[in-house]
Amino acid sequence: MKIAILGGTGRIGEGLACRWASRHEIYIGSRDVDKAKDAACGYSCQLTDRGIECLIDGASNKEAVERADVAVLSVPYEAALGLIECLRPVLKNQIVISLVVPMKKNKWFEYTPPDEGCAALHIQHLIPEVKVISAYHNLSYRKLCNLDLDIEGDVVICGDDTDAKQVVMNLTREIRSVRPLDGGPLSESRMIESLTPFLINMAIRNGLSDLGVKFV
Amino acid sequence: MKIAILGGTGRIGEGLACRWASRHEIYIGSRDVDKAKDAACGYSCQLTDRGIECLIDGASNKEAVERADVAVLSVPYEAALGLIECLRPVLKNQIVISLVVPMKKNKWFEYTPPDEGCAALHIQHLIPEVKVISAYHNLSYRKLCNLDLDIEGDVVICGDDTDAKQVVMNLTREIRSVRPLDGGPLSESRMIESLTPFLINMAIRNGLSDLGVKFV
Repeated sequence: MKIAILGGTGRIGEGLACRWASRHEIYIGSRDVDKAKDAACGYSCQLTDRGIECLIDGASNKEAVERADVAVLSVPYEAALGLIECLRPVLKNQIVISLVVPMKKNKWFEYTPPDEGCAALHIQHLIPEVKVISAYHNLSYRKLCNLDLDIEGDVVICGDDTDAKQVVMNLTREIRSVRPLDGGPLSESRMIESLTPFLINMAIRNGLSDLGVKFV
Repeated sequence: MKIAILGGTGRIGEGLACRWASRHEIYIGSRDVDKAKDAACGYSCQLTDRGIECLIDGASNKEAVERADVAVLSVPYEAALGLIECLRPVLKNQIVISLVVPMKKNKWFEYTPPDEGCAALHIQHLIPEVKVISAYHNLSYRKLCNLDLDIEGDVVICGDDTDAKQVVMNLTREIRSVRPLDGGPLSESRMIESLTPFLINMAIRNGLSDLGVKFV
């Protein structure tokens, strides 16, 4: 499968790229092509050093998506809206995985959903030609990026298209020690999106960091 | 400490009573005093069989709260509002722990917060004379009730009174393998309350049951 990771130079993007690269072709997307190529090169080296064969390339966001079956949106909400406008010509029938969380920080982080109810629904309304699936909001990036570590977290996956959701369930199952859970329709993404600022605040309040979630 | 557990004949009430009974005096409260006394007797026997000395008694809700320093509200939202009216004469400066979640079931469970934003804030507004703390919404009752099992879950605790919150943090720490986490002010209870119907739905969708939560 060909996977574009937009915001692929960030920590979660890095982690997903490295966890998937042994089985899939990965295209790291960024506004800055040189940065994307540098990141891709760095991830490749890391994996090659471990004896893992992989194909990771860097590209502009548009070019990455053009080549991909699945596009991961791992960017801030405001950036996502602009990015989608620019991607429109190359969006056909890809699966778009939204990790997007609309939030602002005053003293604490606060979830600021759009009128549609959540970011995933907003994005789906903007690009009805693709299938939006919501996932990977609450994974520890530290664990995701360190291939020696087991993540032992759950990924709640929300979406309205059963086949697309199944693709993301399978991709999730490929990440060692991570359990995919069906979170229901895309509208339920509100719950997992709103958990993100809550987890950040709770980490700060309790002297923790980088919290993921597991249902026990 | 003297702890009244209202709704103490339910599974979560049973679990909390049995987990706390070796260190505290427990008063099981119910509308039906006989039912409360039967439950108290059953829990006592269970603990005595394990060689654990305890004092657990059954009483009317009102009498249980009158004797207590801490009152646990483990009842459905609609019942809680009526119960609070009836408790008003005996509420002085107790700590009231709300496990209350306003929700309804159509095809799926849905969180139905009151105008105040969440049940805990609503309850606090109704009884400003006590200190309301929100906790224990998302514990596995199966694990809580089986004293042989480690729960290995987290309890998010929200409240506006630092001392009262500390009391509940300490009570939580007494439950083996459970970690108390400061969830912030009482208004943040909305997040942990809304997680309850989401967890029930997710359990149904994924063939699981009785999900608790752990932050990893």
